[in-house]
Order: sequence, then structure tokens, then C-alpha cells
Amino acid sequence: MPFMPPTDSMFLLAETREHPMHVGGLQLFVPPDGAGPEFARELVEGFRHNDEVSPLFRKRPADPVGLLGTTWWTQDDVIDFDYHVRHSAVPQPGRIRELLQLTSRWHSSLLDRHRPLWEAHVVEGLADGRIAVYSKVHHSMVDGVSAIRLMQKSLSFDPDATDCVPPWLLKSSRSGGGGRRLDPFGLVRGAAGVAGDVAGLVPTSLKIANEVIRDGDITLPRAPRTMLNVPVGGARRFAAQSWEIDRIQRVAKSSATTLNDVVLAMVSGALRDYLLEQNALPDDPMTAMVPVSLALRAGDSDSGGNSVGAIIVNLATDRENGSTRLEEIAYSSKQAKRILGDLSPTQILALSAAQVLPLAFGPVPGYVKYAHPPFNVIVSNVPGPKEEMYFNGARLDGMYPVSIALDGQAINITLTSRKGFLDFGIIGCRRSVPSLQRLLLHLETALAELEQSWG
Amino acid sequence: MPFMPPTDSMFLLAETREHPMHVGGLQLFVPPDGAGPEFARELVEGFRHNDEVSPLFRKRPADPVGLLGTTWWTQDDVIDFDYHVRHSAVPQPGRIRELLQLTSRWHSSLLDRHRPLWEAHVVEGLADGRIAVYSKVHHSMVDGVSAIRLMQKSLSFDPDATDCVPPWLLKSSRSGGGGRRLDPFGLVRGAAGVAGDVAGLVPTSLKIANEVIRDGDITLPRAPRTMLNVPVGGARRFAAQSWEIDRIQRVAKSSATTLNDVVLAMVSGALRDYLLEQNALPDDPMTAMVPVSLALRAGDSDSGGNSVGAIIVNLATDRENGSTRLEEIAYSSKQAKRILGDLSPTQILALSAAQVLPLAFGPVPGYVKYAHPPFNVIVSNVPGPKEEMYFNGARLDGMYPVSIALDGQAINITLTSRKGFLDFGIIGCRRSVPSLQRLLLHLETALAELEQSWG
Repeated sequence: MPFMPPTDSMFLLAETREHPMHVGGLQLFVPPDGAGPEFARELVEGFRHNDEVSPLFRKRPADPVGLLGTTWWTQDDVIDFDYHVRHSAVPQPGRIRELLQLTSRWHSSLLDRHRPLWEAHVVEGLADGRIAVYSKVHHSMVDGVSAIRLMQKSLSFDPDATDCVPPWLLKSSRSGGGGRRLDPFGLVRGAAGVAGDVAGLVPTSLKIANEVIRDGDITLPRAPRTMLNVPVGGARRFAAQSWEIDRIQRVAKSSATTLNDVVLAMVSGALRDYLLEQNALPDDPMTAMVPVSLALRAGDSDSGGNSVGAIIVNLATDRENGSTRLEEIAYSSKQAKRILGDLSPTQILALSAAQVLPLAFGPVPGYVKYAHPPFNVIVSNVPGPKEEMYFNGARLDGMYPVSIALDGQAINITLTSRKGFLDFGIIGCRRSVPSLQRLLLHLETALAELEQSWG
Repeated sequence: MPFMPPTDSMFLLAETREHPMHVGGLQLFVPPDGAGPEFARELVEGFRHNDEVSPLFRKRPADPVGLLGTTWWTQDDVIDFDYHVRHSAVPQPGRIRELLQLTSRWHSSLLDRHRPLWEAHVVEGLADGRIAVYSKVHHSMVDGVSAIRLMQKSLSFDPDATDCVPPWLLKSSRSGGGGRRLDPFGLVRGAAGVAGDVAGLVPTSLKIANEVIRDGDITLPRAPRTMLNVPVGGARRFAAQSWEIDRIQRVAKSSATTLNDVVLAMVSGALRDYLLEQNALPDDPMTAMVPVSLALRAGDSDSGGNSVGAIIVNLATDRENGSTRLEEIAYSSKQAKRILGDLSPTQILALSAAQVLPLAFGPVPGYVKYAHPPFNVIVSNVPGPKEEMYFNGARLDGMYPVSIALDGQAINITLTSRKGFLDFGIIGCRRSVPSLQRLLLHLETALAELEQSWG
């Protein structure tokens, strides 16, 4: 049995009923012309009847209890497909709202550690005839970005292709190993790799980060305490919606900012409106942690690099005017990236890890309650396909990342792109974040306001 | 905040991802004449729109993590009904099989300890037009028998009654306190009450039990090791089916045995056939633990007493002939009850607790693997209503208990009665007990065989 590196097992150890450590995705598909009411069931059968499961999706912890800090990976020869691949239905009236409620529930429950740590639901019953696929996989097996990439890999650009297979049947999946780490939780993992082991992670990262900060004269934006930075419960809410990339790109061009700046300005406006409704807007500006690719140093902001860092951006939520917020965000983001540009990859990783590290103290009693949060919200943008994609003739019509809520980080916003659209997925702690879906409304309001100035 | 007695908190402490400690029930209803496709949704709305939630269903542990061994109960003023009452749908083709798959999944996931420990699903989409209600509640709040009683209390004998409310809106629910404890896990709890505290439970019970056994010249039937007596995983399978009481009663009368004896003979035949299929039938006869009401001492086997004991019955699975098995079961059961008849209530409780106690050692590493099981399977029969019952005009057409699988007890069979039928619910560990639903087939085969001799 292969030894499980601490960079994997830390995600199993950190997991409790209150903190599931799996990442998920909700995909929407338009069935091909002529598909009958049996389409979802046939999809389920197709997902199940194949024994060529890739090694990654056969992996499970050898010791499911795993309280001892180390454990081993083992491989299951026989996969219980009826367990892993589930046929589900949304109740009437079959709106996206009902689908999001189901997704919230599925994402709230822990994976069974006695079998490979993944599940997929094929969902029928949407009134508009679309089919949804919700899948989840444990973060100890694969990080969020790799999970999204795997989902993409299972699709085809060819609408007539009939040889598409789900992610677990893909031939060679390098995921779960090294490689790209836009994933915020992967940062901690990546930094652990730098330091050699988990025990060395904290001092090494802090030492390097300290040097960087001292030498570079850096001051990190300080995050105020908010209702989003509290210990989380065991239930989740999930909200998701798509926005046309053209709208966002138009604002970015007119305002001479980037697509990511406009996305952050939408998030800023939405959080501001939401917190005003909750009578909970802090006086000081909130900040976002944004994972960025190291390729940024070469000025290429779209392609993933070999590793990633994180920047902390001032969201300027204290400003009333949307354009002012966008300006401050663009400035703060540029500053943060400039700093990264002066550093070596190892320094970037260390600095980024130092910024993320306070997350690791979440489970310490009282820490989240009394310490200032390192940032207020995590916003990740994972590049997706630029063309229409299909799964055996069914057209991909939405791909919403479902990430992780943590103590101190009660919501997480992750988005991914596909042809013409940005798909936002917002996961939140059900107890701490009431009416999470109102953030969708406010995201639209914030974009509309920016369009009035820059559209 | 009221202190949580160890007899409650032990069920929270014993709980892990592998051992959910909630009990459930799956009810089937035939909608009233003229009910439209909106019936399930209206039911959900009716379940949700009421703030008169009884104190029992407002209770939650004040300290959800609760690793310290003691915690407190607290009360939630605001109930998040959208969380607790869920609208769900079975996928096509909408058979009972799909419903049981959903039930298996729901029963596998842990309740959220940050809110009152219960959930209910109203399920539409069955092809036959029936509506299902699956509900679950944590064993620290209410034991299995009380849960079933609560479900009954929410029903009416009057098909025209329109004032039925779900269990959580019932005015005075005494459940969760003292009272009837046919529930096997309640035995441990009850015995803890006798001993005064959990620390004193083991020595006191064993002392009394030892005296009883020595004075009474009792030998408890020894259970062989079987594939059903292994550590369990975190996923479940649920199987359920109804049998006509008349058929079972007819065999009991002709064979001069009891209804419970015939039920145990069905279980015995089913387990024998199932284990033969799995090449896993032990040479020695298997045994069942059967909770019995103390009222048995007064010869009344149907009405619940004030407290319960447990008997261990020889299932005679080594015998090929069904009638022979029934004879041996009836003899063993009579012997066990005769012993109880000679004891004081406290002695019965202590003896029963001593029989159940090995279950408490389940979490000790290696215990289940190396020790002989105290018995092979738990079979509980919870008396239900003798007349047709309705919920606001919808006729109850099935009420299947969904119990708990434990380390060492990979299946649990619990049944309840209603007018004309016995409803069997079999919960099993998904990993240890493949093809659990075949037990339903074998239960029918076993009854049919008995009918040939005694029908």
C-alpha cells in the first residue's frame, strides 16, 4: 500500500462533520435532439457499466478512521457503481432553484471513507428538459482545479462524438499528483511540498514570507471582521448563475481594467449590498484572496502556470460608487501582482502560503472568533474551454464549481469560463449566511451599475 | 442550558461517519381522492409553515463537537424549515426500488449537530401515485420505538380529519424522556439509569447478571461468527416489504406458536438462504437478540410495558427444515421468557443490559474482529395501530422502521404492524452485506414453506 503523503492526509485529518473537505461541480447539459425521457437513465447506465476506472478513482484511505495522522492509500479492484453513480430527480416545479437545493444537500454530506472518495449524481426532472450532473471528490484525492479540468477532459468539442466517458473512466489522469495549483487549498499543500514536510511548513513559510515582506516593504491589506468570517456549521447553501463574458469584457476594456478586476468589482458590489441588507457591512474595506497563476510573472494572465500564488486584493466595499470600487480593486490587484513579479517562484509560494496559513488554525478553539481574518472571502477563477463542448451529443450549458466553506471563510466564490459565459458557483455555510441566493441578484446589480459607466 | 445526561450524550459520542446514530422511518401514503399533482408540494408547505415546533424537535447539542464527553442541550427558537423539511423526488421509473435507494442514501448521512437533530423528506414521483415520507431523528433525542410512536401519533383514525400535524408539531410529546424502551439501544440507556451513571453501568450490570445466571442456572446461547458480525462502513442499504398479518397468524395458530416466533422463523429461513448464497452459513445455529416488553411477565405479549428486557433466541439456522426451525425457535423463546418471568424488573434490565453490552465495545479496535458476537442479529417488533390510519385524508399504506447498523451488527431487522400488515425494514452496511434486498425474497420463501406445513 502506498504511503499517503501528509499533503494528502491533511485534508482527511482536517475533515469533520462541520468541515467536509470535498470539492464539487454542477454541470448542466442540453440533451441532443431526439433524446427521449430515458436520456438521464441511459446516461446513468453508461456511467456505471464500465470497469475501466482510472487508478485515481479507485484510491481510498486504507485506514478510514485515520486519527493517527498518517495513513495509506489503497486501491479498490471492484467499484460499487450503484453507490458512486446515482440517479436522482428534482421535485416539482423543476426549476434551477430546486436543483440548487438538492446540490446544497449533497454537498453537505461527508463522503464514505470506506470506498474511493467520489460520487456523481445524474439529475432529471428539470422543467426545461436539461440534465444536470453533480459530482464531488475528496480534496485529498484531487484539488478543485484539477477536478474542474477532469470534468472538461471528459467532454468533446465535437457534437457528434460518441466516445465521451466520465472523468473516472479517462485513460491517463495525472491529476492528484503535481502540476497546476490554482486551488486555494492546494497552496497549503504546495507550500508543504516546498518545506519538505508539514511540520516544517509553518516556520519555513513564515521565514521566507518575513524576508519578502521586510525586503519588499510590503503591507498586506488588513481584513475587517465580518459575519462571513465565523466558525461554520455542517450544512451548506449553494447558489449558481452564468454571466455573459462579453458584458464583463466590455466593462474591462472601457475601464482599462482586467476581466478579473471586473469580476472582483461584481463580488465587491454584491457583498456590499448583501451585508447592507444584513446590517453587517464593516466600516473598513473587505479583502479577497485570489489565487493567481505564476505565469502572471510573464504577463500571461489566462494560461495556468506550473504552480500558483495568491494575492490579497482590497475589495473597497467601503466605497458607495461602483466605478470607484473597480478603480481601487484594479489598483490593489496590480500592486499585489507587481510584488509577485519581483519574487522567485519559491518566494511566491512561501508568501502565498503565509497568507493562507491562518486558515489552518480554524479548528483551534476561539481562533476564528478572536483573531482577525487573513482575508474576507476567497474568489477563484478557473479558466475553462473557449468553445462549445459536448458529452456524447449533449451540449454543456453550465459548469458551476462547488467549493469548500471553512471556519473563518463561510462563503467561497469560484467561477469558471466556457464559450460565452462565466459560471459562478457560491458555496456558503447555511447557518452563517442566510439568503445566500440574494448574492446572485446583487452580482447582476453590480455589473449593471458598472455597465452604466463603462458598458 | 439543561445538562445532557450521559444516557443521551453517549449516542452523540458513539457517532462517527461510519456509525450514524439516528433512527428513521419510511412511510407510504395513498393520497386522498381528487388530490392533484401538487399534493406532495402542498404537504411540504404544510409541514413547513408552522412555528409551533415542540420542544423535543427544537433541542440541539449546545456543543456540536462534544468530544469532552459531556455537553448540554439547548433550544433553537427559530427552526430552518427549508433545511429540516425537504421536498424530494424518485427518479424514473419511480418504483419502490428507486425509493429504497434514496432511503439508503439519506440514512447514510450524518445529521448536522448545529441544529435540532431531525430531517424529513416528502417524496413524490412514485409511478403508482403514492407519496413517501422518510424521516430521521438522532437517537440522543428519541429512541426508535418512541420515534415510531410519534409518527403514529401524528396520524388519525378518521379519514376526514384535516387537523393532522407532523410529529414535530405535536402538542405534548413525552418521548425522549422515560417510558417504554423496546428499542435495543435504549436498553443500554435504561441500564445506565439503573446503575446511576455510565461509569457504574458495566460492573453493576455484570454483577446482577452474574448473580442471575449463577442462581438461575442459565446458559445463554452462544452466537457463531458470521459475515454479519463485522465492523461496518459508512454507507447503508435499506430493504422494506409488507406481509399480511393473517398469513403469519395462521401459521402461528396452526403450529401453536406466537406471531413473533413465526417472524423469527421467517428471519431464520431468510438468513439461512442468504448466507448459503454467499457461501457463508455457519455450522452452528445463529442467534437473535429480541427486545421484549416486561409486560410479558404478565403474559401480555402485545402491549408495551413500562420498560423492556432482551432475550436471545436460537434461530436454528443449522436446520434444513422450516418447521423444525420454527419449533426450536418457539422453544428457545419460551425458555428465555420463562427465565425473565422469575426475575425482578431490575434484574431483567441488568441481565438484558449485560447481553447488549458487548455492542458498546464495538469501537475498541479489534474487538469485533476477534471476539465472538453476543448474538448475530437484532430483530425488533414494534406494535403499531390496529386500524387504518390517515394523515389529512391520505391513507397510511406502509410504515417501515429504518434502524441502526453497528460494528458487529451489520444488519438490523425492525418491523412494525398496522391494520392487516407487518412492515419489515432491514437496514444493512452496504459494504458488508451485498444484495441485501434478496433477504426480502427469502423472507417470503420462508413464510411460504411454513404455510405448506401450517397454513
